Amino acid sequence: MQAALRAGAEALLVTHAPDVRYLSGFTGSSGAVALAGGRAALFTDGRYTTQAKAEVNGLRLVIDKRSPGVQAVEWLAAAGVKKCAFDAAQTSVAALELMKKAVNQALKAVPAPMRRSFFVATDGLVARIRQVKDEDEIVRMRKAAAVGCGLFSAVLQYLIPGVGETQVAAQLEFMARLAGVEAMSFETIVASGERSALPHGRATAAKLPAQGFVTLDFGVLLGGYCSDMTRTVHLGRPSEREWDVYHSVLEAQEAAIAAVSPGVRCSEVDEAARSVLRKAGLEKEFSHSTGHGVGLEIHEGPRIAARQEQVLEPGMVITIEPGAYLSSGAALKARRPGSRTKKGHPVAKAFGVRIEDMVLVTKSGHELLTAASPKDWIEL
Amino acid sequence: MQAALRAGAEALLVTHAPDVRYLSGFTGSSGAVALAGGRAALFTDGRYTTQAKAEVNGLRLVIDKRSPGVQAVEWLAAAGVKKCAFDAAQTSVAALELMKKAVNQALKAVPAPMRRSFFVATDGLVARIRQVKDEDEIVRMRKAAAVGCGLFSAVLQYLIPGVGETQVAAQLEFMARLAGVEAMSFETIVASGERSALPHGRATAAKLPAQGFVTLDFGVLLGGYCSDMTRTVHLGRPSEREWDVYHSVLEAQEAAIAAVSPGVRCSEVDEAARSVLRKAGLEKEFSHSTGHGVGLEIHEGPRIAARQEQVLEPGMVITIEPGAYLSSGAALKARRPGSRTKKGHPVAKAFGVRIEDMVLVTKSGHELLTAASPKDWIEL
Repeated sequence: MQAALRAGAEALLVTHAPDVRYLSGFTGSSGAVALAGGRAALFTDGRYTTQAKAEVNGLRLVIDKRSPGVQAVEWLAAAGVKKCAFDAAQTSVAALELMKKAVNQALKAVPAPMRRSFFVATDGLVARIRQVKDEDEIVRMRKAAAVGCGLFSAVLQYLIPGVGETQVAAQLEFMARLAGVEAMSFETIVASGERSALPHGRATAAKLPAQGFVTLDFGVLLGGYCSDMTRTVHLGRPSEREWDVYHSVLEAQEAAIAAVSPGVRCSEVDEAARSVLRKAGLEKEFSHSTGHGVGLEIHEGPRIAARQEQVLEPGMVITIEPGAYLSSGAALKARRPGSRTKKGHPVAKAFGVRIEDMVLVTKSGHELLTAASPKDWIEL
Repeated sequence: MQAALRAGAEALLVTHAPDVRYLSGFTGSSGAVALAGGRAALFTDGRYTTQAKAEVNGLRLVIDKRSPGVQAVEWLAAAGVKKCAFDAAQTSVAALELMKKAVNQALKAVPAPMRRSFFVATDGLVARIRQVKDEDEIVRMRKAAAVGCGLFSAVLQYLIPGVGETQVAAQLEFMARLAGVEAMSFETIVASGERSALPHGRATAAKLPAQGFVTLDFGVLLGGYCSDMTRTVHLGRPSEREWDVYHSVLEAQEAAIAAVSPGVRCSEVDEAARSVLRKAGLEKEFSHSTGHGVGLEIHEGPRIAARQEQVLEPGMVITIEPGAYLSSGAALKARRPGSRTKKGHPVAKAFGVRIEDMVLVTKSGHELLTAASPKDWIEL
């Protein structure tokens, strides 16, 4: 936005649905907010007339058949706006082209070079404001996280060898709905046995094995806000390698949580997790970043990853979710030369472990929002 | 694509996830496909190594930390490509900017004007190919539609006054999961009583009333393909106005289905529904278009709407879903002067009706994919 202001933008156009909801309260899938000179308006279409009237407060409401973005820029042009900031990450090349045509039409009287400089690209102004949650948002996120923890406890009884991953997901999502959630915040991950080696192992028809890990990664949408958590439990007795990898990931996860504090760079939090796994010889097996912001969307800023220089601020809610994913070769390779598998269960199969909490950055450090779900080794 | 070819594009870059899946089989959320000179490659990141190896067949597979789009254009530039088509509707302004920078870097030796003309905007080439389903896709969509019909029959038992809309959704989604679906294809709509007047009334904590409509609009994701259907049933005895509006919507829906045939323009199908509702005095109350294509995505082309000149082709799968949404004032207004409410139940409350089927365009006409769910008046 700094750059947009320097470029003289006197108005802002917002079309990304979560940003529109954040600014206006409108929860429909198709809407735009325009802000200029202290005036603000929400644009949507006829499917949403009743809903928009009920939800939107303090903004002028305009209903029309054309695309909300086109409506919005015409309104801005009519209001005398000559430069308007928009979010380049959330606007398609085609949508911008359509809006440019609308501006060209609406500002016929204005010299062409001025028309051509109407749109000023910004990189997620509203998204950046949304990273820091206010009190009302934090209350909602605490509730969503608490529902998530309750679901984890309740779903353990269904983790039985032979039960399908989708059956586990069915039970989890059913209980979530009965708890009053609007939806799951993303496609539920139930990754069992060798499938636990898939970082994004959405539930399939695969049956839970008699021996092996089950990774549950799920979240609910409650009051518009997302929860997100992961726990990995073990069916049957583990190999020594499985036990070791679990505890390395747990150590990495707790190190990263301990690093969360205002003023700390995101890269430092990532490195806190990564250095533990590096020492454990699992650096390559940790093939993703440590976490991400969460809120109205399941993936928001900040990114908790290497080379992310952004600094944590009180009110941010982030996930901390290191993992280690071992191919069958890596799973065989013992951490210490000469170590044996535990209790005679050799492990040659691929496996993976991920542990994830939601963490609120507070003024003095951090608060674990998913503390109600234990992370100690669970063997079923 | 015609325009892209005329502009000399010799390569195609695809980044929209359903398009990537369609071309490569890869189901991850972050990937790109590049096609040039008979060669094709899929680009993704380390989270998806195992999954991509299992899913992708016949394409070269490249795994790297950078964004798949940037990887892809660098590969194209290295292959000597000078012009590349991309989908302007599915590429953000920011993503294009990043890819332009990568091309500028990769093609340093090439004159600047040639670098600047590297990207050629197209409007959904893959999306247009996807509109026409092949035999394998039609089999999957028939299955998804059949599961949807089964769920509608099964959920009727839960439509009891006092039960919450989210409880109905919970039962529906639970049964869907047990039937083996990957997910719901969109947020389930359970809109009861006055909420039936909301075209997009997602399930809320509201309790089903003793008297009034309940609109159920839902779909499943099965084998990657979406189903989509809507039925509106009535709790208790209807007013004459409710009865009349239901049957007008049904008549409109059946007229539109009857119009579905290869060579027919989408606008003609829309008009078939709209003219029935116009004659019934419900034109303004039908505030959206008649339908949309469905497939890997819940909303695809073609659009079944006014002024849509696109012609239906065998293999297209579309929804036909007219509706009428009456505010409390409109609900009171009787269709015929002097008509009375039925059985002494005056209706002053808002209500709405929508009926939706999935229809396959065949060589000789059409096939109703959701025929297993009756559309006769259901009173519970």
